[in-house]
Amino acid sequence: MIDETAKLGKNVKIGEYVIIEKNAVIGDHVTIGHHVVIKENTRIGNHVTINDHAVLGQYPVSNKKMARKPSIHLSPLVIGDEVKIGSQCVLFRGTNIMDGVLIGDLAAIRENVTVGINSIVGRNVMVENHTRIGQYVTIQTSSYVTAHMVIEDHVFIGPCLSSSNDKHMEMGKGELQGPILRMGSKIGNHATLLPGVIIGEKAVVGAGAVVTKNVKANEVVVGNPARPINR
Amino acid sequence: MIDETAKLGKNVKIGEYVIIEKNAVIGDHVTIGHHVVIKENTRIGNHVTINDHAVLGQYPVSNKKMARKPSIHLSPLVIGDEVKIGSQCVLFRGTNIMDGVLIGDLAAIRENVTVGINSIVGRNVMVENHTRIGQYVTIQTSSYVTAHMVIEDHVFIGPCLSSSNDKHMEMGKGELQGPILRMGSKIGNHATLLPGVIIGEKAVVGAGAVVTKNVKANEVVVGNPARPINR
Amino acid sequence: MIDETAKLGKNVKIGEYVIIEKNAVIGDHVTIGHHVVIKENTRIGNHVTINDHAVLGQYPVSNKKMARKPSIHLSPLVIGDEVKIGSQCVLFRGTNIMDGVLIGDLAAIRENVTVGINSIVGRNVMVENHTRIGQYVTIQTSSYVTAHMVIEDHVFIGPCLSSSNDKHMEMGKGELQGPILRMGSKIGNHATLLPGVIIGEKAVVGAGAVVTKNVKANEVVVGNPARPINR
Repeated sequence: MIDETAKLGKNVKIGEYVIIEKNAVIGDHVTIGHHVVIKENTRIGNHVTINDHAVLGQYPVSNKKMARKPSIHLSPLVIGDEVKIGSQCVLFRGTNIMDGVLIGDLAAIRENVTVGINSIVGRNVMVENHTRIGQYVTIQTSSYVTAHMVIEDHVFIGPCLSSSNDKHMEMGKGELQGPILRMGSKIGNHATLLPGVIIGEKAVVGAGAVVTKNVKANEVVVGNPARPINR
Repeated sequence: MIDETAKLGKNVKIGEYVIIEKNAVIGDHVTIGHHVVIKENTRIGNHVTINDHAVLGQYPVSNKKMARKPSIHLSPLVIGDEVKIGSQCVLFRGTNIMDGVLIGDLAAIRENVTVGINSIVGRNVMVENHTRIGQYVTIQTSSYVTAHMVIEDHVFIGPCLSSSNDKHMEMGKGELQGPILRMGSKIGNHATLLPGVIIGEKAVVGAGAVVTKNVKANEVVVGNPARPINR
Repeated sequence: MIDETAKLGKNVKIGEYVIIEKNAVIGDHVTIGHHVVIKENTRIGNHVTINDHAVLGQYPVSNKKMARKPSIHLSPLVIGDEVKIGSQCVLFRGTNIMDGVLIGDLAAIRENVTVGINSIVGRNVMVENHTRIGQYVTIQTSSYVTAHMVIEDHVFIGPCLSSSNDKHMEMGKGELQGPILRMGSKIGNHATLLPGVIIGEKAVVGAGAVVTKNVKANEVVVGNPARPINR
């Protein structure tokens, strides 16, 4: 079901039961799996691979309970060259996935996110809105990246990270601010990051640590609450 | 592929490659995404939105290892008015989703669950069977809600909650009892709740806390194991 | 869309918009849900049930950032008799799912994994490559099983486990080694296991524990870091 206004490049391979909606633009040498849905206006580069059942270019939704409604004025989803997108993924409008990025199966990335070149967003990773992910970043399987978080270049995040951005837990006070992970910092598996904490350059957060305050550059912290260790 | 016994209301928009099985009942002004599967007998209210690839009305399964077999005598899945259902969701028979609820992408809700009006079940949240979720509840992304859990009205659950219900870890002794979260309690991100703990009214569980015993009303607890703090 | 080289047994029920690629072999009395994708060469036993939107037999992918590229020389995915596979699952080539296994919805299992007879891989569980799961194992919902992990027979893993295998967090030094869970050990919900830790026979890891070193047979550990308790 390919809309007649969609533009397809050279040598595009399309699986069965695929939907390409109006004004989508697909580059050259793109491989599209079975049952993939590419929503209106989505722009896809060259040499991209999209696995089965992925949904690209979804609009956010809201209900009465939600204090902060997502914007519906969003630019199209833009996907660079040589990107690989896993099965069952959901990627939103207003987001920019740069060249060489790999997105694992069953991952979701919301609106107004940037993912820098050659980064990895692992399987089942959830990335919320208004987050900036640098280049050569690794985010391993089942990690949770909250809204308004900053992940600088060359950061490594082990599996099952949890992060948050709202000190007041939905009391509606103050700004949301996710953690800020400086260049080259490393986060062990299953760490917990509280709202707005800053993890300094090349700092290391141990597996299972609960980080309640800022971590200095090159520091290593472990425990609940996380405290520096001597190495 | 719409079964001839299915009943569709006025102004129902249906995507491509949708399956609506026998005796399903769809209200007015419903929008159904691409590749959605609506299984037999499912009842959907008015002004509902269902995103791509969602599966509604699934039966539970079991194997030889499973000590407690799920019931297969289940009433149909019932979805109220103005409900929004994310892409790739799986909702089971025997469950009741009330008016105004939002269910995020890649979430699953098992049989015999009630979700009260205007509540939010976030993206990638897993809700097990026989759980009661009140109204105006927020359950954020990637949280895990165990079976036989009670979440009262206006509870807030941050991302990546883990809860459990079996003290004996599958030794087959005793009843399963999930945590009980009283009215207006707040749970920080990545908290761990042990089987049957009661979180009192307006109590607060800090991020990363491991709650091994009951928390009194208005109390604030943090740490592993969680202990009250003075504010 | 069933390839003409695929071989189907007796009494195979096939849903709508299903894809069965070339040289797939399907046993007798198999039920295949809607929108299921069975990729080339996949071998499925008798009396198997596959729910909607599952993807069976996927190849791994990689990008420039990934230090260890996955093998692409993989034998077909092999699924035994009486296996049940949930909706939206993704199972890879090179993996062997033995008789009677149950795999929950939204789970993914990578290449070169063995799952022994009658084991349960819960909903939303992610299993990485080169992992060996014994028989009669339970892995509950939303758990994360890292690469190069060993789970012996009769192990119980509660919901939301996190495990890891790389002490150096992607510095490229040394071998990857996931945790080793000995026969009959039990892991409480939301535990954290560091790379290579050995959990002894019938040992118990408490909910929320962070296990940084080996646990002896029959020992019970809790806390962060995990320490033995007297019972």
